[in-house]
Amino acid sequence: MIYPDELQKLINYYKKLPGIGEKSAERMALATIDFSKEDVDNFAETMVNSKEKLHPCKICGHLTEDEVCHICSDKKRNKNVICVIEDYKSVFSFEKVGNFNGVYHVLGGLISPMDNIGPEDINLSSLVKRVEELDNPELILALKSSIEGETTTLYIKKIFEKKNVTISRLSYGIPMGAEIDYLDIITLDKALEDRKKIS
Amino acid sequence: MIYPDELQKLINYYKKLPGIGEKSAERMALATIDFSKEDVDNFAETMVNSKEKLHPCKICGHLTEDEVCHICSDKKRNKNVICVIEDYKSVFSFEKVGNFNGVYHVLGGLISPMDNIGPEDINLSSLVKRVEELDNPELILALKSSIEGETTTLYIKKIFEKKNVTISRLSYGIPMGAEIDYLDIITLDKALEDRKKIS
Repeated sequence: MIYPDELQKLINYYKKLPGIGEKSAERMALATIDFSKEDVDNFAETMVNSKEKLHPCKICGHLTEDEVCHICSDKKRNKNVICVIEDYKSVFSFEKVGNFNGVYHVLGGLISPMDNIGPEDINLSSLVKRVEELDNPELILALKSSIEGETTTLYIKKIFEKKNVTISRLSYGIPMGAEIDYLDIITLDKALEDRKKIS
Repeated sequence: MIYPDELQKLINYYKKLPGIGEKSAERMALATIDFSKEDVDNFAETMVNSKEKLHPCKICGHLTEDEVCHICSDKKRNKNVICVIEDYKSVFSFEKVGNFNGVYHVLGGLISPMDNIGPEDINLSSLVKRVEELDNPELILALKSSIEGETTTLYIKKIFEKKNVTISRLSYGIPMGAEIDYLDIITLDKALEDRKKIS
């Protein structure tokens, strides 16, 4: 036993966080007990409060402390353009970019027959309902380029096929700054397929 | 405002930990709220408990949940050999190596005239008292190779000069696996000075 029990427990919790190995967890636990008592108490309280207070927005499923998130309740956002994403973490990514003025719809998963996840297991019916109430709605499908992502994209395309809905998906291609030599062939193939005319 | 208030607060706390930047703190905060409520509650509780329960060992100053740490109270450890270190974090490092069978003395700092830290500001008098009660005591000074470390090492050497105390310091030299070409000149110079005869 190298660490006192309580400290070892704290190290184990830190190790559960993504990207944190043994060494980092140890440093973080030791740093934590070096904080002032007030800081440690507040850190712990914030942790518990975050878990308790945050829940999905009634409209879009994004994480919020209120009934409706600040994006859905923002009058300046264009409610006719809905960006469909797998989980709320992507909302934060898009909001950081800051160029999207529409709203979001969080599916909370992707269709995956392999894992027994069907269309009824993700938030699709609420999407259909939202879209039906709009004039000239536009859907931007921002799902990952995996089999599950593609399946879900195709499924959504099919639902709205005969309705007056503009649907697009994010472009696939070369990430900024990447060396073409090192790209996997699927990305390169998609980049070729999605090539854009330069006037 | 990209993150809900409570989540942003949690991100800010994670950012206070060593080696954790914006991006990692965000991932860690989002991972935390993905934990079960039970896990989050226990994580927070462990954090508060670690801070509350852990305090310095009455004898050596190492971190412990008890009055005397498990090292000082271990009958198999050689109480005549004391490894003198700057802070308790080094105890964990030595214990991981696992080859040291003596005990420790945590100074809780180093003498630094620049920062107005004198010999009376670190746990030196308790060291003198411990050593006086021993027969044939041996001190291993394991302080860092900085001006403060050297000053403290020299000071301790002087205290025990006319007493029957064996004093050594850790060897300086080339860290295992390091390329000699890339070593700083001070380390190289020390490695030359501390060179060891190969029979």
